[in-house]
Amino acid sequence: MPKVSEEHLAARREEILAGARTAFARYGYDGATVARLEQETGLSRGAIFHYFPDKLAIFVALAAETNRRFIDLIVERGLDEAVREMAAESPDWLGVLIELESRLRHDEDFGRRLMEAHEPLQAKITAWFENEQASGRLRDDVDWRELGRFATIVLNGIALRLVAGDPFDVEATLKLLNDAIAPRQ
Amino acid sequence: MPKVSEEHLAARREEILAGARTAFARYGYDGATVARLEQETGLSRGAIFHYFPDKLAIFVALAAETNRRFIDLIVERGLDEAVREMAAESPDWLGVLIELESRLRHDEDFGRRLMEAHEPLQAKITAWFENEQASGRLRDDVDWRELGRFATIVLNGIALRLVAGDPFDVEATLKLLNDAIAPRQ
Repeated sequence: MPKVSEEHLAARREEILAGARTAFARYGYDGATVARLEQETGLSRGAIFHYFPDKLAIFVALAAETNRRFIDLIVERGLDEAVREMAAESPDWLGVLIELESRLRHDEDFGRRLMEAHEPLQAKITAWFENEQASGRLRDDVDWRELGRFATIVLNGIALRLVAGDPFDVEATLKLLNDAIAPRQ
Repeated sequence: MPKVSEEHLAARREEILAGARTAFARYGYDGATVARLEQETGLSRGAIFHYFPDKLAIFVALAAETNRRFIDLIVERGLDEAVREMAAESPDWLGVLIELESRLRHDEDFGRRLMEAHEPLQAKITAWFENEQASGRLRDDVDWRELGRFATIVLNGIALRLVAGDPFDVEATLKLLNDAIAPRQ
């Protein structure tokens, strides 16, 4: 039997995720049937479910990937770039993310799986806000946890406005967010 | 045939809406079967669907009612009270609202019906923001439309954090929102 390299496995996994994301965004979660997942990934159901136990596992991996991308963006390039990227995110994909997180909020197994995927990132982002405040780049009269939560609220609110199809000025939004959390003059 | 008063009709309609909201919040939209709608409203399906053509029409009426309540709160008691009320809103009901608006975003008929219900309110809330700015209670270096949109983004973000079960400090959030949109010192 040929030995399959780690790189090959990772690449195949990424292929599946990319195709599945397209299918979810295009048809919605329920509408992304196995046949459509095959079509968008270019792989057979056998191949797809060799890498993931079920459709929900693919969704959880994609949700975690989206989360990770935004947290990395904040930590590496700052909040402004994260807000701009959120505003440029696919409303179709955001719609699926928000729909599923709302629909499955009472599903303990789903919640646990999302949490497990999210937990390592949580430490990274909280440390960033704490450090930004300690370095004088955030106001110091409000707990840094609340500053982080406010930024999260704004990012979440932008996602929901995009899903609703409501236009807004990204730079004006950024200016208001920064005026809320920047050091007071 | 007995003449049914307008008041009676309106009261019956409210009864159906209140029961349906409980059913949607408790069981989710799909889980709120006709049998459960009967149970929560205390009325027969015949009575319920005499007032509303279908389940979606009940949901649209409830979504419009929630919208109206928040817009009235802002206009009559200010943004702070609206933010506090949003933070105290049932996460279960918010979850159904957000799920359906995300799930049905490509459903033109649904979008049109929501919009029709929302349009008369839109004028009311935009006039409020314009007037607040003209009266010097909002910063004047950012268009009042963007101030209104920012407040909407924050209210939406709070709703999504509640649905995710993530705790936050309402008064700290309010302070940050107000610092973003208040006149600059």
